[in-house]
Amino acid sequence: MNILYIMFDQLRFDYLSCAGHKTLHTPHIDRLASQGVRFTNAYTQSPVCGAARMSAYTGRYVSSHGAAWNNYPLRVGEMTLGDHLRDAGMDCWLIGKTHMKADAKGMERLGLSPDSVIGARQADCGFDVWCRDDGLWAEGPDGPYDQKRSPYNEYLKSKGYAGGNPWADHANAGVENGEIASGWFMKNADKAANVDEPDSETPWLTSQAIAFIEQAKSPWCAHVSYIKPHWPYIVPAPYHDMYDVDDIQPVIRSKREVVDPHPIYRAFTQGRVGKSFAQDHVREKVIPAYMGLIKQCDDQMGRLFDYLETTGRMNDTMIVLTSDHGDYLGDHWMGEKDLFHAPSVKVPLIVHDPRSSADATRGTTCEALVEAIDVTATFIEAAGGDVPDHIVEGRSLQPYLTGTPHPNPRNFAISEYDYSSHPVGTALNVPPKEARLFMVATQDWKLVHCEGGFRPMLFDLKNDPNELFDLGGDPDYEDTRAMLYDHLHTWARRPAQRVTISDAEIHAKRKIGARTGVLLGVYDEDEIAPDLRARYRGPSPKRPN
Amino acid sequence: MNILYIMFDQLRFDYLSCAGHKTLHTPHIDRLASQGVRFTNAYTQSPVCGAARMSAYTGRYVSSHGAAWNNYPLRVGEMTLGDHLRDAGMDCWLIGKTHMKADAKGMERLGLSPDSVIGARQADCGFDVWCRDDGLWAEGPDGPYDQKRSPYNEYLKSKGYAGGNPWADHANAGVENGEIASGWFMKNADKAANVDEPDSETPWLTSQAIAFIEQAKSPWCAHVSYIKPHWPYIVPAPYHDMYDVDDIQPVIRSKREVVDPHPIYRAFTQGRVGKSFAQDHVREKVIPAYMGLIKQCDDQMGRLFDYLETTGRMNDTMIVLTSDHGDYLGDHWMGEKDLFHAPSVKVPLIVHDPRSSADATRGTTCEALVEAIDVTATFIEAAGGDVPDHIVEGRSLQPYLTGTPHPNPRNFAISEYDYSSHPVGTALNVPPKEARLFMVATQDWKLVHCEGGFRPMLFDLKNDPNELFDLGGDPDYEDTRAMLYDHLHTWARRPAQRVTISDAEIHAKRKIGARTGVLLGVYDEDEIAPDLRARYRGPSPKRPN
Repeated sequence: MNILYIMFDQLRFDYLSCAGHKTLHTPHIDRLASQGVRFTNAYTQSPVCGAARMSAYTGRYVSSHGAAWNNYPLRVGEMTLGDHLRDAGMDCWLIGKTHMKADAKGMERLGLSPDSVIGARQADCGFDVWCRDDGLWAEGPDGPYDQKRSPYNEYLKSKGYAGGNPWADHANAGVENGEIASGWFMKNADKAANVDEPDSETPWLTSQAIAFIEQAKSPWCAHVSYIKPHWPYIVPAPYHDMYDVDDIQPVIRSKREVVDPHPIYRAFTQGRVGKSFAQDHVREKVIPAYMGLIKQCDDQMGRLFDYLETTGRMNDTMIVLTSDHGDYLGDHWMGEKDLFHAPSVKVPLIVHDPRSSADATRGTTCEALVEAIDVTATFIEAAGGDVPDHIVEGRSLQPYLTGTPHPNPRNFAISEYDYSSHPVGTALNVPPKEARLFMVATQDWKLVHCEGGFRPMLFDLKNDPNELFDLGGDPDYEDTRAMLYDHLHTWARRPAQRVTISDAEIHAKRKIGARTGVLLGVYDEDEIAPDLRARYRGPSPKRPN
Repeated sequence: MNILYIMFDQLRFDYLSCAGHKTLHTPHIDRLASQGVRFTNAYTQSPVCGAARMSAYTGRYVSSHGAAWNNYPLRVGEMTLGDHLRDAGMDCWLIGKTHMKADAKGMERLGLSPDSVIGARQADCGFDVWCRDDGLWAEGPDGPYDQKRSPYNEYLKSKGYAGGNPWADHANAGVENGEIASGWFMKNADKAANVDEPDSETPWLTSQAIAFIEQAKSPWCAHVSYIKPHWPYIVPAPYHDMYDVDDIQPVIRSKREVVDPHPIYRAFTQGRVGKSFAQDHVREKVIPAYMGLIKQCDDQMGRLFDYLETTGRMNDTMIVLTSDHGDYLGDHWMGEKDLFHAPSVKVPLIVHDPRSSADATRGTTCEALVEAIDVTATFIEAAGGDVPDHIVEGRSLQPYLTGTPHPNPRNFAISEYDYSSHPVGTALNVPPKEARLFMVATQDWKLVHCEGGFRPMLFDLKNDPNELFDLGGDPDYEDTRAMLYDHLHTWARRPAQRVTISDAEIHAKRKIGARTGVLLGVYDEDEIAPDLRARYRGPSPKRPN
């Protein structure tokens, strides 16, 4: 069996027709859902690209791997999906985005050269690279956001697209009176990107994926990782005008939310992004473009799935379709992600397992609490490996796919956010070590613990599914907060770094109790096994003269 | 300035005359105390050799480095004192014991060869090795406890000591009627080890230390790490009969302790070691030998300090004298270490700083709560480095040495114990992930949290300094336990793995806010700085035909 690990970037869990979106039809992704299981309570380990992805690729919590925000390097030696799959005899390839920043200092300390096989895998998050393109090719006075080469920009140039950065001036810009109408300005979100649709980012990456699969030797794992529907919010024709204001779903927010709000939530709403998305004209420009980007993604899924079906790969490939986090789009007076309301912290998660063992669950949904790192564990098991649960903190989703009771279901989900280098950290002047948030969610409740002396946030998911009433300071809910803090602290005490010895090896130590001559608490030889006594006897050897 | 980091193994904090021992006189160690600061509330990070030392050598908590018990490998890439000192321009050498087990799997994964400089340092806990001897050369039917070569055994052989393992049959055995009287049997603790005193382990390692210093180029750090007074409890003449039963201090225990005790404590007391040390005839054999071993250590310190004075090194060398943990010796119906009563978890800690800045505190004691990892931070600072507090969790003791207020004093101390492969884990049948204990101690209280659903232990250090009354289940102390749990959980949520980016680098990110072309939440160009607008303008480039 092969593994196709499809990840979109900033795709909301509820912007799919199979997830209930009223005006955005995604028949191809829905088709995958009809052939597999759609998880309705899937949480990202962090509502920000870099940290979420480092968790997805290591199967470990953000606090465990430490790469807590975008471009915080993943420490050298941290084991990844690629390491585990290769141990199980499966290659693990990257096609698209990882947002991985290499631990250059650590690699130098260990003498690892980036151009060695080992060094390259360390630098690319454990993947072998078919095509890496992190998808953000912006440039400013301080230089490019991303120093690497962009295969996508090279593709556009090879096709004859003009200018030094066709990603910026074609794929992510429209045209107005012959002038560049940059996609960085949201007022341009309703314009058609100045690129032929087949040459835009999503079809290009899909072609890369198909080219990879065409030549891949089974068993393979391919991480097909799209930058879209991530901003800049602009999409080529015909997707740019498929949706209009009437297609926008009602905004999820209440004026009450911003009356005497939690100081950290307030700081996010008062930043430029929050203020901008609080305005209806911004949402009315951006959301139709965002929907168009998703529609294009869905059409490309149709193309990819058709290819898999015609080649027979649909029958021997496990397909996971998910996202690294969501997008507020103005809900809760927020834009982007960063906090833990559902639009930001929940992710779409569809798992298609071609094996007959999964036939019973095809087309069903699963409401169990699951996390992004559970996908990692699922892949290791699907590849025939044993999940090394002293390293990988995810729990295989396999029981949910076969419709059998999960031996170790989650009674709470954890997500984390480190805002130590986010403008909010600066605005609130919170020291880097304290600029950290922890979410613990059950089916009924969501608590957000804030370091730095702030009160927690609390939402009643059953009676306030839209999370409009923060009960974090309400004395009536002290017991509920205590219950959720108990979950958080049980988790916080986990042995996440005891990664060099497995529980099985520990059990073996207990059973064997190696006899290596060390005697503890023994007064005389009568207390030890007769067959051992001879070792401690004999004529006393003479000392030298 | 140089650094001499002297560590004894299993030396109790209160078995020195400067620490109040009535019958054991340690004038040489007392002399060091009279020239420096003696810390009276110093805690080891774990009351077991391996874990305690991995913390001492990394400056990180056991939960942070993960090498939680003896021979649990220290993960490859974990930074050590040697890495930090070399960054500060100081060599870091090992003379004696580390109890380090290399992460062979991790090294292989990263292609690190043990015979390369980098690989060797990874395998030896970051030290360059002058002489490594872990000091336990036992052998049994399953082979040797330690697979490495023993420089000490080779020394004895070179001196003409007979037999395949003179460490066992000479240095750690007496003679009775011409027969080997093994030191592994405590009944033999009162016999003289069958070795000339100058050839025994402590003088031998002292000679190694002097030989190293003789040739060392300043600045150097030397970790002089003795196996003694660790068992086997046997010592050569004249130390074997210097002390007798009358010199033994009163045992610290109460029958009440073992009436309906905490199940984990009970399991330790009911193991062979506990049952053995509960007997007075065992204590009466062992303790005089243990005192003799310490007396020999003290005499060797006299020899070492005399050498340092005659060569002038006493004036340019920071000297730290400590131990990795203590020894119950029958107190609390326990032997060995493993739990958190003072005889086990507290360590002697004397710091001699030759600089005039420390003159004001010479000969004083400091009652502040300090931890073993604080020594690591002190060394980095003494070497002229900045303590990388995103990696090293210890806090420099420097303010206590200069008599200035500590900017960041500890209001609680943490120690941990992982009994997952200890016989108690087997006896109680506790799963490896739950066989873990956490101690949090303030000046007034000590709480022990036990994973696995056991109640905590609690001791009132002010009113019950001997820790004879476990209040862990007493409803009257619920608030006290809550206060201590709050400390524990504040600690448990620390960002211990964010090791690839410093707080200074994060602050720099905040200040700079690099301008790399990414615009978030911008509706139109009027919202950005005029000098940036040109980047997003210009004639729209034509698409290819």
